[in-house]
Amino acid sequence: MSKKITFLPDKTTITVDDGENLLTAAATAGVYVHAFCGGDGVCGKCKVKIKEGQVSSERGHLKTAEYENGVRLACQTSVASDVVVEIPEAMGKDGRALRRKPKTTRAISARSLEALIGKWEVTPPVEKRFIKIDPPSLDDNVPDLQRLLRGIRKGCFACKEPTYDHPEMLRELPFILREANWEITAILLRGKREEEPDRIIALEPGNTTDRLYGLAVDIGTTTVSGILLDLNSGKVLAEASAYNGQIRYGEDVISRIIYSQRAGGLRTLQERVVHTINEIIESVCRNVMISPSDISYIMAAGNTVMSHLLLGIDPKFIREAPYVPACSQFPLTRAASLGVMAHPSVRLFLYPSIASYVGGDIVSGVHACQMHKSPELTLFIDIGTNGEIVVGNMDWMMCTACSAGPAFEGGGIRFGMRASSGAIENFQIHPTTYDPMIVTIDRTKPRGICGSGLISIVAELLESGVIDQQGKFNRSIDHPRIRDGHDGYEYVLAWSKDSLIGEDVVITEVDIDNLTRAKGAMYAGYQTLLESVGMSFNDLDRIILAGNFGAYLDLERAISIGLLPDLDRDKFYYLGNGSLMGAQISLVDHRRFRQRSEVSRLITNMELSENPQFMNHYMAALFLPHTDLNLFPSVRSKLAEL
Amino acid sequence: MSKKITFLPDKTTITVDDGENLLTAAATAGVYVHAFCGGDGVCGKCKVKIKEGQVSSERGHLKTAEYENGVRLACQTSVASDVVVEIPEAMGKDGRALRRKPKTTRAISARSLEALIGKWEVTPPVEKRFIKIDPPSLDDNVPDLQRLLRGIRKGCFACKEPTYDHPEMLRELPFILREANWEITAILLRGKREEEPDRIIALEPGNTTDRLYGLAVDIGTTTVSGILLDLNSGKVLAEASAYNGQIRYGEDVISRIIYSQRAGGLRTLQERVVHTINEIIESVCRNVMISPSDISYIMAAGNTVMSHLLLGIDPKFIREAPYVPACSQFPLTRAASLGVMAHPSVRLFLYPSIASYVGGDIVSGVHACQMHKSPELTLFIDIGTNGEIVVGNMDWMMCTACSAGPAFEGGGIRFGMRASSGAIENFQIHPTTYDPMIVTIDRTKPRGICGSGLISIVAELLESGVIDQQGKFNRSIDHPRIRDGHDGYEYVLAWSKDSLIGEDVVITEVDIDNLTRAKGAMYAGYQTLLESVGMSFNDLDRIILAGNFGAYLDLERAISIGLLPDLDRDKFYYLGNGSLMGAQISLVDHRRFRQRSEVSRLITNMELSENPQFMNHYMAALFLPHTDLNLFPSVRSKLAEL
Repeated sequence: MSKKITFLPDKTTITVDDGENLLTAAATAGVYVHAFCGGDGVCGKCKVKIKEGQVSSERGHLKTAEYENGVRLACQTSVASDVVVEIPEAMGKDGRALRRKPKTTRAISARSLEALIGKWEVTPPVEKRFIKIDPPSLDDNVPDLQRLLRGIRKGCFACKEPTYDHPEMLRELPFILREANWEITAILLRGKREEEPDRIIALEPGNTTDRLYGLAVDIGTTTVSGILLDLNSGKVLAEASAYNGQIRYGEDVISRIIYSQRAGGLRTLQERVVHTINEIIESVCRNVMISPSDISYIMAAGNTVMSHLLLGIDPKFIREAPYVPACSQFPLTRAASLGVMAHPSVRLFLYPSIASYVGGDIVSGVHACQMHKSPELTLFIDIGTNGEIVVGNMDWMMCTACSAGPAFEGGGIRFGMRASSGAIENFQIHPTTYDPMIVTIDRTKPRGICGSGLISIVAELLESGVIDQQGKFNRSIDHPRIRDGHDGYEYVLAWSKDSLIGEDVVITEVDIDNLTRAKGAMYAGYQTLLESVGMSFNDLDRIILAGNFGAYLDLERAISIGLLPDLDRDKFYYLGNGSLMGAQISLVDHRRFRQRSEVSRLITNMELSENPQFMNHYMAALFLPHTDLNLFPSVRSKLAEL
Repeated sequence: MSKKITFLPDKTTITVDDGENLLTAAATAGVYVHAFCGGDGVCGKCKVKIKEGQVSSERGHLKTAEYENGVRLACQTSVASDVVVEIPEAMGKDGRALRRKPKTTRAISARSLEALIGKWEVTPPVEKRFIKIDPPSLDDNVPDLQRLLRGIRKGCFACKEPTYDHPEMLRELPFILREANWEITAILLRGKREEEPDRIIALEPGNTTDRLYGLAVDIGTTTVSGILLDLNSGKVLAEASAYNGQIRYGEDVISRIIYSQRAGGLRTLQERVVHTINEIIESVCRNVMISPSDISYIMAAGNTVMSHLLLGIDPKFIREAPYVPACSQFPLTRAASLGVMAHPSVRLFLYPSIASYVGGDIVSGVHACQMHKSPELTLFIDIGTNGEIVVGNMDWMMCTACSAGPAFEGGGIRFGMRASSGAIENFQIHPTTYDPMIVTIDRTKPRGICGSGLISIVAELLESGVIDQQGKFNRSIDHPRIRDGHDGYEYVLAWSKDSLIGEDVVITEVDIDNLTRAKGAMYAGYQTLLESVGMSFNDLDRIILAGNFGAYLDLERAISIGLLPDLDRDKFYYLGNGSLMGAQISLVDHRRFRQRSEVSRLITNMELSENPQFMNHYMAALFLPHTDLNLFPSVRSKLAEL
């Protein structure tokens, strides 16, 4: 049940889920509230007054009189009905609440996601068929196998004779048939193509057709996520995710490749990621009380290095020019042969890669959002240390990867950190007092800055004139939070007393420079790829933001710093974890699954390294948002108002 | 170089190989020579006189005068040119050499074999292709696998993209390509059908196309035989055979099945036959100085039980009514996965079976002799403990198995033995003196009687009136060799002084009865199968004798005892080891190989057990040659002359 919040005096409204935190809601709505402690309730600054509606809140540090008068600490309050909230202190010089455009993050509504990815049917690539077989007699003593095949084809004259798994099935066949009194359930894997025969991968005594499960897995460099699906209904039964167990051997794919070159390194990395997948299998199975051996199919997607490592294929040459992976199409593998906790018959499918740095996670995402079926010219973006970009439509697609560096994941940022508890994920600045409003993940005291927080901070500093387009602090502002620190000028996001780590949490010019390089690489990537096909941003019908990072991205701020092109906001879509979504859809609808080959067939890779055009675009993009402000008309207007 | 021998006074001629033994030649020609010691040179009876031509012989026990006069011991003499030989003592009462029809054993000439099995081409189901691959560059950095596939398809635009062995090939691919400086040889397995893509099973650095070898194996219950083939030329490089290592666990398939039901029995039997195959591989490879890992394909054929045991599939239900094997089509297996000494990429193909007692050895034989391509109505016979019979032509085929018992292999015969050194393999009887002419394998003193010897003895005893059509001895003949012994009446083949075992070697009425039952089962099998399709012996265009036993069979004598039907002798063909021949042809010509599926598709099995028609025919066949002499006109004539 969603609730509507109206923030006075500006009448900014936002619709949120029941129980949403008021500070988070204000940050999302772009309403500034004093909040220095990240939402921990200690600074006591974020006082608001509930004018109408029900909220749930502790009194905390508030005085009784205040509390009875409807005053609440926004960070300690959750909404229980439609509410009207007054922000008492949020006054500018003109006595009005700060006029800020509402944040334009587009929550993925079911409708828009469906528009993007289309519908799918429940016809999974594995199926169970219950068969009653005529027992043999002297008049009819065809072998057990032929008897089984005859039973499976019964009533299906057009069907091809299925193939079967050898030797496992043959060895158990005579016994399972007789023990089950000739009534068995066959697990069939559909042929790769329509014209290929099905394959019997396992037999179970009796009728087990009501139990058919599949697992979709996204193998991220950092995080592995899995979804358990009921393949009879297509429904999600359980989800789980865990840090990729390889992480202790290196944060990114390059350091993993380096580790894999050590003695035993490849095997260790392979075992670690398998261990993580097994954790996920255990978790989702425990959740719905089934056995891991009840899972009949595993579909996975990961980048090229993760795919190589999972299969135990040496990724050595991915790292060396000319960056050649061992393969891009990964054949269907027995999951158990890799060490995955699965029945020996279970296949593990890995989405194909395009190139060394455009992997199966991207193909899966493109496949999920049906770019290869749409006439609309689409820019598909997955932002990260390694940013992947795909442009095209049903007729052609080009992709590339650009090395943005680790800034989006907190790397190279003084107080940078992953998006975990205590990370500043949202930020606003008071346009006159320059005081911060910070919201942290889990609303604890701040520990550091995650990627989305970093973008918010830099965008706010830029739009409030605290920094200029080169990312340098305005030395003329005299404010205690703006100071000349260790690494040059910096802005104090949280004083040591308000921080979790007992020291001032700051953002420095060096940090801003690192972010500028990262976003510049991404933007130069879009430009180079579009130009390579003689197109420009204006030709685009859609921009799809994939990946976990994309899902948390504040569109307006990302445009402000020049990370995303300044286009009609209605053209932007959030896909979320497209990699997992592609695997999930393929696991449920075998016809969609079969279409995946079109995706990899359509996509052509382009290398940006040593590409002079890319270097030119990159240099031009090392400004906030860009040296050429004509490319960012909406940002130009904002900056002009300063 | 063949030589012609003319035996005087009857002018019987025979063409033999250079160096052939004179006693063996006489026995083959149907010329009686006194020979009591099997050819050992000790009895000194087999004196002949060389009238013309060169022979090689020791003087031995002969007097100098005799020797200088051209007298020789036939068993100690080999021919060195065309010769004319007088048999001095071989006089009947009329003073003429015994007038006997020459033995009609038809040596398989190259022409007749070709007429039967047709020609084949050298296009094996594995091939090697040398490929020079363009090294990768930044402009062309497609993955190693795609680069390899591109290289293979180069200049072959119609070719389908090959599949490949996963994961072995993928894991070594990046290294083998670079170490070989992008010049490699791919070993390709052709698709099962024309429209299926090839499969890359292995890669070798450099150009190794001149080395391509295959192994054909016949897995007999008793003997395993193998042929090493050069698959570039189709030539046989080496042959080897060995007793099936399972033999210590039982002589026949039934006792093997029984053993397989013991704890660990199945595994032991599987390991033993694999050990035997490995012995053969070692032997043929040592012979031509290649490594076992140089063999790129193994094709094998064996009966249904042997096939199950090789693959480690429990044969339990083959022995229990209604006699159902686990499977009849055996999928392509990795030889190494069974323990066979082979490169991990090497496939082992096993000819499909038809039923529990009509196995892949028969299918391979039928395939070799192209019954499924011929309009001629053919009776295909493999005589043994388990006799297999196939009848049909290109339009349809029926098969059955009949349990003849072990008599043909010496089982149930007092002095029965396998066809090994010292076994009486040929026999004639003097029509008036009733003295024997015996020829043993290796021409040692006799130890016992093998299957072909047994048939010779019974046929001779019958045709000379020593036994009657019921197999009973003529009590009215007064002769020291015909006596009432332990098991009833018997004939002394060799006195103890002439035998290797120090006791009289005899044939008894019980022995004859056992042979009669065995041949009766075979004959009743032919009749029942022909009748089931509304046909009779007169409809047959060809009779093909397959199997080792068939190759040694004396046609005339086999007809005399009623083991084979009394038809125009020109209709009979000796195929020899058709099982090995089918595997050999398939290994060399993949088009012939692909046609094998027609064979198993065409053949329908019929069960004889509990078939009343079969029982009637069987009872009627328990006579020598048969109760109905109209079925054996040529034998009737001979017997009428008595």
